[in-house]
Amino acid sequence: MSFSFEYVRPNSNSQARLGKITTPHGVIETPAFIFCATKAAIKGLSPLQMQEAGTQIILSNTYHLMLQPGSEIVAHHGGLHKFMGWSGPMLTDSGGFQIFSLGHGSVAQEIKGRHQGNEPKKKSLLKITEEGAIFKSYLDGSKHLLTPEKSIQIQRDLGADLIVVLDECTPFSVDKAYTFRSMEMSHRWAKRSLAEFERHNNGTQSLYGIIQGGVYEDLRQQSCDFVNSQNFFGHAVGGSLGASKEQMAEVVSFTVPKLAPERPIHLLGIGGIADIIKGVEAGIDTFDCVHPTRLARHGGALVMQGDRGRDHINLRNSRFLRDQKPLDPGCDCSTCKTFSRSYIHHLLKAQEVLAISLITMHNVRFMNRLLESIRVAIKSGTLSGLHKAA
Amino acid sequence: MSFSFEYVRPNSNSQARLGKITTPHGVIETPAFIFCATKAAIKGLSPLQMQEAGTQIILSNTYHLMLQPGSEIVAHHGGLHKFMGWSGPMLTDSGGFQIFSLGHGSVAQEIKGRHQGNEPKKKSLLKITEEGAIFKSYLDGSKHLLTPEKSIQIQRDLGADLIVVLDECTPFSVDKAYTFRSMEMSHRWAKRSLAEFERHNNGTQSLYGIIQGGVYEDLRQQSCDFVNSQNFFGHAVGGSLGASKEQMAEVVSFTVPKLAPERPIHLLGIGGIADIIKGVEAGIDTFDCVHPTRLARHGGALVMQGDRGRDHINLRNSRFLRDQKPLDPGCDCSTCKTFSRSYIHHLLKAQEVLAISLITMHNVRFMNRLLESIRVAIKSGTLSGLHKAA
Repeated sequence: MSFSFEYVRPNSNSQARLGKITTPHGVIETPAFIFCATKAAIKGLSPLQMQEAGTQIILSNTYHLMLQPGSEIVAHHGGLHKFMGWSGPMLTDSGGFQIFSLGHGSVAQEIKGRHQGNEPKKKSLLKITEEGAIFKSYLDGSKHLLTPEKSIQIQRDLGADLIVVLDECTPFSVDKAYTFRSMEMSHRWAKRSLAEFERHNNGTQSLYGIIQGGVYEDLRQQSCDFVNSQNFFGHAVGGSLGASKEQMAEVVSFTVPKLAPERPIHLLGIGGIADIIKGVEAGIDTFDCVHPTRLARHGGALVMQGDRGRDHINLRNSRFLRDQKPLDPGCDCSTCKTFSRSYIHHLLKAQEVLAISLITMHNVRFMNRLLESIRVAIKSGTLSGLHKAA
Repeated sequence: MSFSFEYVRPNSNSQARLGKITTPHGVIETPAFIFCATKAAIKGLSPLQMQEAGTQIILSNTYHLMLQPGSEIVAHHGGLHKFMGWSGPMLTDSGGFQIFSLGHGSVAQEIKGRHQGNEPKKKSLLKITEEGAIFKSYLDGSKHLLTPEKSIQIQRDLGADLIVVLDECTPFSVDKAYTFRSMEMSHRWAKRSLAEFERHNNGTQSLYGIIQGGVYEDLRQQSCDFVNSQNFFGHAVGGSLGASKEQMAEVVSFTVPKLAPERPIHLLGIGGIADIIKGVEAGIDTFDCVHPTRLARHGGALVMQGDRGRDHINLRNSRFLRDQKPLDPGCDCSTCKTFSRSYIHHLLKAQEVLAISLITMHNVRFMNRLLESIRVAIKSGTLSGLHKAA
């Protein structure tokens, strides 16, 4: 068996668990953080550098790759691992998140590309039907239909270890009736995804189902019952998690216990330090977010105690002009071992791309060390102490 | 003695020589290529990656660093080596090239910065006097005076192993009378530079004199006589080398034999493959140019036989869409060992900064391998064969 998941829950007072997800490309020790190589590249770091930073797993986005370069180009290389030179475990999403979030106009800044900042946000989601979603390409405006089957086919071409069903990502603004209808359609899409997946399943990939239901506990219960009843390898908590961090923590807390414990549980798109620790306490195994890499591109270096209660220091700030300390004196990454804040401040002012690489290296290592310390804390029963430090 | 230069000339039919420049930060096997870390950073590669690509020596530009971050910031770090994390041999120029080339409006594109492309080329060189050059900062328009003494003081702060006297870089367009007067002034500046250098010389830096005289052999003779008579560690061939590659080869050929052979000879700003081989045949020991790293930023990967007689292939070209070969099938760099032309084409189309890093890595390794093969060819007397391959 190429895929397996095993876990222990060392502390009876906490839902936090220590696990191992085994994939054909290696084992992921959980809790783990998944870094976003959106277009088959971590912005500014090579796969080798990601590995040197202790990275276990990365993800790429089906939405971006289906449009550019197209999944058949990746398939010709034998899949994403060979295409992008990453030999470790990998996940792809379904493509739905970008289609729907762009369609709803909420995270247009998510999409980095030639039109970035030059155009007003356009509704690129043209139509949602039972069959799938029709949307316009962010690159050239061309029309595309993404169905549950098509998403699985593309993800098969891409060849990641862990793949995800297509669902409708509902925004926070919709009412319970819409959330319910959307959830039911996502469930039907999930069954079609699973059928398409099983038609060609050769043991090299495993499929995650997604839990919908918004902020409504009864809907989440129905969605958990649904995914538990289907032959998924893992589960991902998706849909709206509410309008605040408190509500998100609440939704996660009441959702996770409803899920089959023998399957790994992923929380989609969450990457704040405190949010991760709360998620782990609720029983989440894996997380993904663009935050560590995007923050780096804006000059932000992750630290446990940032400015004004934030999770980072902004190296563009002129107070770093003469600061000879490393980004994070406690960090063992190659950036912190070699370069000063003053140097990185200079690179940012001089618009040197090396600044992005150096800060990204730190932020990736920071996240990997954070998750490592979370795993240690779960084992030693000291997770609540870590929580206070964040 | 921290500094020394030794050489052999293995083939009596050729001026080509094999040498070793010893510096406090290591030995440079010559002929060698010096990569431009203009603003104390190679664009897209870390010092560690430069080292992995077999790099012996890099340079930074006094003009850029005196304006941003300012040499005192670098001095606080203990010099450029510590500031930018490079532990090998290093050179800084005098700052003159950018001041004069910008002032003459000829290589404004040399200066990358926030104003790039947004403004008409402005004359930033305000005045040349016997004392020095008054110019406007490319960053904020502020006025600065650079004198020979100031240039040495700044380069002392920067702390590179090899440093260079301030000279007036005459453009090709001036006549012989101007070239002569300018050369004489540059000689007076060189004496002042040397005096300032010797006032604080503690053996950690060595000074290069510059040969002026344009395309005129009699003036080049006078300039060579001058530098030979002064206590310089090495010599750099500067000034106008003519309007064509043929004229450049001719100027270099009649200049080098006039120079004291016991000192290393650098050719300023030349980096074409054929030009380097011709320069080596004329007796040049070291070269520098932005070409390999700048080309990479525009998607160009160096190869021995490029498109239409060029030295590179342009990875933006759509013919690479499905090309699974490495950039250069004969190359041993980490890019060529891991990634396809198709993948790099995708990264360029997707505007991923990783593309710059990957191509730069190849181009740096390419140049280091080229110079390595030149050194081997000098030893074995097969340099003319290498010439034909370029």
